Amino acid sequence: MFAPLTSPHNPRVKAAARLRDRRGRTQQQRIVIDGVRELLRAVEGGIEIDEVFVGEVAAPHLTADSDDRNASSGASDSHHPAEWRQLAERLRSSSASCFVVPPRLLEKLAFGERDSGIVATARMPRRELSELRLPADPLVVVIEGVEKPGNVGAILRTADAAGVSAVIVADGGTDLFNPNAIRASLGAIFTVPVCEADSVATRDWLESRGLRIHAARVDGAVDYGQANLAPPAAIVLGSEATGLSAVWHGSRVAAIKLPMLGHVDSLNVSTTAAILMYESLRQRQSSRTIVNAR
Amino acid sequence: MFAPLTSPHNPRVKAAARLRDRRGRTQQQRIVIDGVRELLRAVEGGIEIDEVFVGEVAAPHLTADSDDRNASSGASDSHHPAEWRQLAERLRSSSASCFVVPPRLLEKLAFGERDSGIVATARMPRRELSELRLPADPLVVVIEGVEKPGNVGAILRTADAAGVSAVIVADGGTDLFNPNAIRASLGAIFTVPVCEADSVATRDWLESRGLRIHAARVDGAVDYGQANLAPPAAIVLGSEATGLSAVWHGSRVAAIKLPMLGHVDSLNVSTTAAILMYESLRQRQSSRTIVNAR
Repeated sequence: MFAPLTSPHNPRVKAAARLRDRRGRTQQQRIVIDGVRELLRAVEGGIEIDEVFVGEVAAPHLTADSDDRNASSGASDSHHPAEWRQLAERLRSSSASCFVVPPRLLEKLAFGERDSGIVATARMPRRELSELRLPADPLVVVIEGVEKPGNVGAILRTADAAGVSAVIVADGGTDLFNPNAIRASLGAIFTVPVCEADSVATRDWLESRGLRIHAARVDGAVDYGQANLAPPAAIVLGSEATGLSAVWHGSRVAAIKLPMLGHVDSLNVSTTAAILMYESLRQRQSSRTIVNAR
Repeated sequence: MFAPLTSPHNPRVKAAARLRDRRGRTQQQRIVIDGVRELLRAVEGGIEIDEVFVGEVAAPHLTADSDDRNASSGASDSHHPAEWRQLAERLRSSSASCFVVPPRLLEKLAFGERDSGIVATARMPRRELSELRLPADPLVVVIEGVEKPGNVGAILRTADAAGVSAVIVADGGTDLFNPNAIRASLGAIFTVPVCEADSVATRDWLESRGLRIHAARVDGAVDYGQANLAPPAAIVLGSEATGLSAVWHGSRVAAIKLPMLGHVDSLNVSTTAAILMYESLRQRQSSRTIVNAR
């Protein structure tokens, strides 16, 4: 199943290396996934894996049979052995092309200084607003104009943990599948339903589904703890630098704020997002507790 | 007040440049502060500024009199004009040695690729546990083994906003005044009371002051929303990689957890910290609301 590949001039390698840049991702409509945990999340999330490039050191974890793996599980297997095992099983039933590559070639494909041992390419996930399926009591997070990949990834990681139904990226400015966003999300970018749409369409879509829309604004009228954030609800977040567009002002949107008691005048957008997502979850759970106690 | 300084071989410049490394900071017991907003926070926080190096472009904001400043407040003044004004006033009444330096010299002193226009040196703030003064109903945050400066800074930024009484760095591993920590804190590292202490002394100190101690653990027994986090309380956070030491286990510490409903198995430590600090604040404010309603 795993073929050796050693030439840096191989067309697959050259094409994959170009996926580190946004331009390459847009042109090829593919993304690059770096790391065993992130790749496992992608497979779990139904992402179509195209190619897998595993380094010579890590290759035994994917290619050996179970007994060999158990026998050799020591030194180099020390990080995430369970993830390697699960990934090996998943890849056996996939149609991905798999290659074992020397260290210098893996370096060419990997992002930054990370030595994760494995890099894969995948078809860029594309989902339209109309394809999003929401559960009965949804909590949707909307981010508009959030450009830093680290913040996008951090929001997705917390959204996964808080059981958020979907994250909508409500403008064209966010480089959603930037390798730093994937990494900061720990792969949650593949497990949380995500789609890109424009802001007006997003607002109308949320309204038509009966979600109460709350926008986090430093000049918000209501303290977030006094707002009803329990699902069905949407939480809308803008960038720290530019704030939210006019779409999220006006009577159809409740402007909420977090208390700021000190010297700094704002929180990081991923911090604000986390506090609001978990407050929504807390309100949902405490209303359930009350119902159960009756 | 501002003297020109152009030689990169000037002993002041050479000593200041060494403050970018932890070793230099430890040896000189001084720190480097980069950026007008961060420097303003430091002055507000009572930090003793040693030297100020301002670039030629930004110098007019600090050296000109009010009328000149108003006249020229356009292009280069576009970021944080209010901060520059406030800082200029503060520096006039300080004993800091102030220098105007050419761009290449500022680059030598500045951290990373940031062009903030101003860099200062200051005596390293040192506060012992015994010097910490707590208000009547304190909320104290303890971080143990958190090594990433970005996380340390993010926690301090949120602690400032949430009105946290003090942050205790409960081990020797954290490089508290790393320039990245200062930057990520937006200068809140200077406005929130911070001290370093060992973990046992910290736990005993918290107990002796009657604070309920809550440690965030993935295997915590109680959901954080069910815990009484209202002040007087302490929230203890460990690193994602190694967790908390044994000091924070046992009957004297309540282990609390955040619900994790998705695929990822943990939150970023600064995210966990933010959710818990704001939950404490919410509980305090809602108990006040109840009292007021009576």
